[in-house]
Amino acid sequence: MELGSEYDLDLNKLNISSNNLFHYLESYNCQFFDSGRSALRHIPFNQNKAVLLPEFICESVSNCFPSQNIIFYNITEDLQIDLDDLKRKITPQVATLYICHYFGAVQSAQILSYLRRMADECGIMIIEDTTQSFFSINHITGDYMIASIRKWLPIPLGGVLYTKKAQDLPALDHIKTSSDNTRSYGMILKNLFLKNELDCNAKYRQIFTECEEKLDTSDEILQISDFSRFLISCIDIPELIAARRSNYHFLTLELQKIGLQPVCALAENDCPLVFPLRVKNRDSFRSYLMEHKIYCAVHWPFDHFRPEFRPMAQKNAETLISLPIDQRYQKNDMTYLRDIIFQYGGELLF
Amino acid sequence: MELGSEYDLDLNKLNISSNNLFHYLESYNCQFFDSGRSALRHIPFNQNKAVLLPEFICESVSNCFPSQNIIFYNITEDLQIDLDDLKRKITPQVATLYICHYFGAVQSAQILSYLRRMADECGIMIIEDTTQSFFSINHITGDYMIASIRKWLPIPLGGVLYTKKAQDLPALDHIKTSSDNTRSYGMILKNLFLKNELDCNAKYRQIFTECEEKLDTSDEILQISDFSRFLISCIDIPELIAARRSNYHFLTLELQKIGLQPVCALAENDCPLVFPLRVKNRDSFRSYLMEHKIYCAVHWPFDHFRPEFRPMAQKNAETLISLPIDQRYQKNDMTYLRDIIFQYGGELLF
Repeated sequence: MELGSEYDLDLNKLNISSNNLFHYLESYNCQFFDSGRSALRHIPFNQNKAVLLPEFICESVSNCFPSQNIIFYNITEDLQIDLDDLKRKITPQVATLYICHYFGAVQSAQILSYLRRMADECGIMIIEDTTQSFFSINHITGDYMIASIRKWLPIPLGGVLYTKKAQDLPALDHIKTSSDNTRSYGMILKNLFLKNELDCNAKYRQIFTECEEKLDTSDEILQISDFSRFLISCIDIPELIAARRSNYHFLTLELQKIGLQPVCALAENDCPLVFPLRVKNRDSFRSYLMEHKIYCAVHWPFDHFRPEFRPMAQKNAETLISLPIDQRYQKNDMTYLRDIIFQYGGELLF
Repeated sequence: MELGSEYDLDLNKLNISSNNLFHYLESYNCQFFDSGRSALRHIPFNQNKAVLLPEFICESVSNCFPSQNIIFYNITEDLQIDLDDLKRKITPQVATLYICHYFGAVQSAQILSYLRRMADECGIMIIEDTTQSFFSINHITGDYMIASIRKWLPIPLGGVLYTKKAQDLPALDHIKTSSDNTRSYGMILKNLFLKNELDCNAKYRQIFTECEEKLDTSDEILQISDFSRFLISCIDIPELIAARRSNYHFLTLELQKIGLQPVCALAENDCPLVFPLRVKNRDSFRSYLMEHKIYCAVHWPFDHFRPEFRPMAQKNAETLISLPIDQRYQKNDMTYLRDIIFQYGGELLF
């Protein structure tokens, strides 16, 4: 048994689904890119004025904005937008507001409708990052929505930019189409490894590492590859949502027995990205899980950019851990995960 | 350098082409299956009456007909239909005539128009096997055309049944869609091996062998997999044809210097499957090429079914060798192939 980390890709389960992501997004204008950051870079935001970014954000997002234009606003302990702080930072210099939902939990309706009104009044563009709430969205707040979809789906690359039908998207014709599906070699090798068919874990890990490095250093905007599009067309979204909710629900009930609960609450229609915990001595716990082949992401390691304005980003970097609950896993996997956590000897609760 | 044998699959060259096979076949009714034999089995031929089969044919074809109904007709040394022999075998018991083109060379227009007329007069169904002439076809003769397309294209599985627009195809709705893309694991591993990225040739050869065995023992008719369809959509057919013709032309000019010429002549618009030679001591020559990593198919090993009626099938099984000239290869590959043949010490000419 092995949980978490990169997806594998099973070539014998590729059947085009009518309930795929293209169908899921059919009420929006959509453009697909090689990554979420390409989708973000394609938005015609004002490069010369300030952007309000949540302090708790992936480094790859802040890298898309001129650093001298970035103003951070605070995020609360339970990952809500700190509206009082944000209000204080709205000035005529601000042209763009970047908002984010965390781990599947959509920001409260009151906050979102306030922000929408305020933005309309002040002529501010809202960019809404739905990377972590991609399958929770019922309505949207932003002028432009972006998401990196690779964390949800077994695809080598993929990001999406979308808007309401009434809002046009920027022209796409000059943007080249990627054909770099290198990560899928790793995903396919991982599949052979997990099926005990080929001893190739060093190789697929090498491929994943190299792909990640390449993505981090590339700043060309590319359209998504045809292969990624094909893979997307094969993934049944209602099944994915149901599996994630079911795994999350199981863990919620089990882990509360030892006093653990997710760091933010999901509404009934939300779909979880992971099961996010805030724990004491996070690194020890993470190493323990790794010894039991449970590989957990950290959202996000601190990038040391303007630490003085980002207390919660630092705290989260030190205390949060993301347990895998995605559609690859079923009840027996979650039972294994629970048992391993129950057997942990260390202290977890603050 | 390594030539021949199964295709590898490069995941970083998958771009949907507007000049793909679906476009190539757009003037026909088409149905795609997991294999040529599934395509053949889907044809509503009369199972209770005799079928005329060319003596020189792959065992997988004759296995699709009740053996007691098979009557073989002769094929000449240069792989033309022996019309005199065929005429003698037309009786009221014959309901189906199976015709085949070899190695890209289409049967002569006179023979084909005679057969079409005769079939119409006698109420005989013509099944035309275009597996080896798939990219030579300008016009068609049969009531139903079938082809296995896996020998032309880097796809895990694929066969096609097609007719003129005026001729309906049998219903397809009850036929399940395959999702067995196992062969593509082998193709992808072979690609990593050829790129010197992974030492996995034993594994991909094992996969290819197992897939071949599975195909030989399966008799379920399945539609082509969605993944194979996607891969087909990425292959540019005019490029494929141009590369094959160019390689074939080069070898024709070079090998005639040592008195070797292909076993059948291609017309100007024909596209070669392979470069077929008839040579003395074929097995020694084939082993020699293999020592130099040139892997040549034999079309076809003799299946020992009714040898007394199939003299040319036996002779071909002993003397023919198929040199690889497909779209994977460029001039330097063909130069290597020529040089290795020129360096051969053994006797080749009859």
